[in-house]
Amino acid sequence: MEKVSLPKGTRDFGPTQMAKRQFIIDSIKKVFQKYGFQPLETPAIENLSTLIGKYGDEGDQLLFKILNSGDFLKDANKQNLEDGNSKLLTPEISEKGLRYDLTVPFARYVVMNRHEITFPFKRYQIQPVWRADRPQRGRYREFYQCDADVVGTSSLVCEAEIILMIKDAFRSLGISDYSIKINHRGILSGLAEIIGAGENESALFVAIDKLDKIGEEKVKEELRLKNFNEQNLSLLFETLNFKGSTKKKIDFLAQKFNTSEKGQRGIKDFNEVLSLVEGFGGNNDHVEFDIALARGLSYYTGCIFEVKINNVAIGSVSGGGRYDNLTAVFDAKENSSGVGISFGIDRIYDAMEELKIFPKEATASSTVLITHLDEASFTYGLKIAQLLREKEIAGEIYPDQAKIKKQMEYADKKKIPFVIVIGSEEVKTGILTLKKMETGDQSKLSIQEIINTILSNK
Amino acid sequence: MEKVSLPKGTRDFGPTQMAKRQFIIDSIKKVFQKYGFQPLETPAIENLSTLIGKYGDEGDQLLFKILNSGDFLKDANKQNLEDGNSKLLTPEISEKGLRYDLTVPFARYVVMNRHEITFPFKRYQIQPVWRADRPQRGRYREFYQCDADVVGTSSLVCEAEIILMIKDAFRSLGISDYSIKINHRGILSGLAEIIGAGENESALFVAIDKLDKIGEEKVKEELRLKNFNEQNLSLLFETLNFKGSTKKKIDFLAQKFNTSEKGQRGIKDFNEVLSLVEGFGGNNDHVEFDIALARGLSYYTGCIFEVKINNVAIGSVSGGGRYDNLTAVFDAKENSSGVGISFGIDRIYDAMEELKIFPKEATASSTVLITHLDEASFTYGLKIAQLLREKEIAGEIYPDQAKIKKQMEYADKKKIPFVIVIGSEEVKTGILTLKKMETGDQSKLSIQEIINTILSNK
Repeated sequence: MEKVSLPKGTRDFGPTQMAKRQFIIDSIKKVFQKYGFQPLETPAIENLSTLIGKYGDEGDQLLFKILNSGDFLKDANKQNLEDGNSKLLTPEISEKGLRYDLTVPFARYVVMNRHEITFPFKRYQIQPVWRADRPQRGRYREFYQCDADVVGTSSLVCEAEIILMIKDAFRSLGISDYSIKINHRGILSGLAEIIGAGENESALFVAIDKLDKIGEEKVKEELRLKNFNEQNLSLLFETLNFKGSTKKKIDFLAQKFNTSEKGQRGIKDFNEVLSLVEGFGGNNDHVEFDIALARGLSYYTGCIFEVKINNVAIGSVSGGGRYDNLTAVFDAKENSSGVGISFGIDRIYDAMEELKIFPKEATASSTVLITHLDEASFTYGLKIAQLLREKEIAGEIYPDQAKIKKQMEYADKKKIPFVIVIGSEEVKTGILTLKKMETGDQSKLSIQEIINTILSNK
Repeated sequence: MEKVSLPKGTRDFGPTQMAKRQFIIDSIKKVFQKYGFQPLETPAIENLSTLIGKYGDEGDQLLFKILNSGDFLKDANKQNLEDGNSKLLTPEISEKGLRYDLTVPFARYVVMNRHEITFPFKRYQIQPVWRADRPQRGRYREFYQCDADVVGTSSLVCEAEIILMIKDAFRSLGISDYSIKINHRGILSGLAEIIGAGENESALFVAIDKLDKIGEEKVKEELRLKNFNEQNLSLLFETLNFKGSTKKKIDFLAQKFNTSEKGQRGIKDFNEVLSLVEGFGGNNDHVEFDIALARGLSYYTGCIFEVKINNVAIGSVSGGGRYDNLTAVFDAKENSSGVGISFGIDRIYDAMEELKIFPKEATASSTVLITHLDEASFTYGLKIAQLLREKEIAGEIYPDQAKIKKQMEYADKKKIPFVIVIGSEEVKTGILTLKKMETGDQSKLSIQEIINTILSNK
């Protein structure tokens, strides 16, 4: 037999995984919709001119490029061909690529449809993206992103709603022990100012973002190499290591930032967001200020979010923040300040598996299998199948005449929770045997009683 | 500004389209699940070795091929490079491609997971596919397929359930005037036998499949070129042109097929399927026998289905049939006879637009916008937004302090059906103004009354 395989870093999702993934996606989608976000889908294929240069040099390398159709070498430069120069030849033989994230396609959509879109524009998008990364545990070449963004307003209501949405989503998913870490670009800039980082701001952010992973000493070493002196460093770690509640930390910083305008703005925004959450009738449980949070800082200009599920060895499962001008990558002149949040479906899946918290309904199985002992029972079973379906109960009739053992095995392997057994006695009386597979309990019931039992057990 | 565009033959789906597409997909998905089909997703990217040779030469040309990552020319044959030979170079620089349909990936999945799958395996799959076809009206390079298949049983219950599923799906979609055309490979073979087509069987099928489009005279011309004589042709058209109910047609053929074993098997299967539909408690309204239906005949070995919506200028919106051995393309030895149905989402969308039958709930808009006249009203509005969301009502608060006219315009453009207006009076009394945008009606209501009004209007 021909050996078949999947490309490295790609996966099939069979029924069991799909049911769980759909549970996650549907839960999050419902929350997005409840907060007024509208769905968008963009094509998997984009022009390379749209993608290239948007993700840095490394990102450009990781784009999957699509070979032009037909005689793609026809107009290729002879010299590049003879030299075997892959780099120079690429743009001549490939015009399209697979999307690398959902943000750039979203920006392109906004630019192309800016006259039709009503701003503020709240969109969500849940689609796969592709990266020619080296596959490893938890890192795939094809994976889903799940983003919600509002563009066209700088209202901090959006930040507060992101916190509320995260909480709503996690409640639907049944995840209770998690932290929403928040920082603000202004606070980071304030920190850089007061410790005198000057031009070295970004080196500072890169280093402290690693604090979690490499620890204080290594961060210090790295910063010394970037010409931070001991006085800078001691001031820095005095601030980073300040312990206390979010409120205490913020009060401490507010004092320190009396000379930093950026720092003050950060504190003000941060406090405003927390107070808006309370204005919505919510609370700030799970919310933690984290001054060392510095993800995506080349992009984010206001609040920065990151969500971690506690007690599982999985990185952040959600993240986002405010950015200044979404469409700047396309040189668009409109002000399109926005704020976005992204949920990592794969990591949430892994965490929920580890915590064993997928609910019973996250199953792709039918609810009932109808089994039959002879041809008359089979014929009788057809009607029963349809009666169940009319009540929106997912039901199957075993399609072949087969030994009852084989039919039961089918239900068992497919984790179908209820089996109806029909034999000549059942056909005669209309009283059927219902077997609950989990317990093995059997009862003799009318079809109406069966429907009631199943609906109340769903 | 940089000019941005979409690749030819690809589309964005904005919120309005997405809501309608999701309505279609969710309706069909629900039916699939009710009949015991389970979800599967396979990656967009497949190894070219999986795809090539499965769709004929033309299909191979239409595969989107992905350029290998890194220095893809490193191991390329120098001669092929210097010759600029695209065809010979392709396999050296491209190992992966985008899936062309959902059937081959499904077959690959079955082969790779045959020891874990419980047969009969009922799977549905709703994902995009890609074809480097020349784009034209209604034909795209990226489009969704929506398939359900059962493999591992030859039971005609599956065929009957396909008819029931089509009817259920169309009922959910609100499409009432349509025809489910059915033919059988055995009946076509019987026809070929009785008119003496001999070796020319496939030329006959290709020609009669075009009857709809090119008419009787052109079909005759085409067949004369393939050495069909006048006697053959007159016998053929006597049969094709036989008028009457499905039952009459079948009775007429049953007589003609007294010497054709294949023809008899076809008639028997066909009658059995119709009688199983009735056994399920259904009826055969909408079902029409169509002897000229010969789609996908290199593949189908039993019943063939095609669904057309009447009174719209759109081709078939659904089709499928029974095949003998799904995994034969991979040389798998297992018997995996199966039967499948595929719904054309894009065409169903176009037909429903033309018929103007999308229901009100196929909208991506929020149900309510909360507008506010001053800061105190805005703050009050936050709590109202959250109260609505707690009742699963999709609500937004206009995020900025803006003139009421601008806020109303936002609701109007986004087709949000209800607007709550909050001013100082409302804050004082807790009695809010609810405006129904469609009629312009305004009422003064408590939040509980508003919730009741909205829930009963949904």
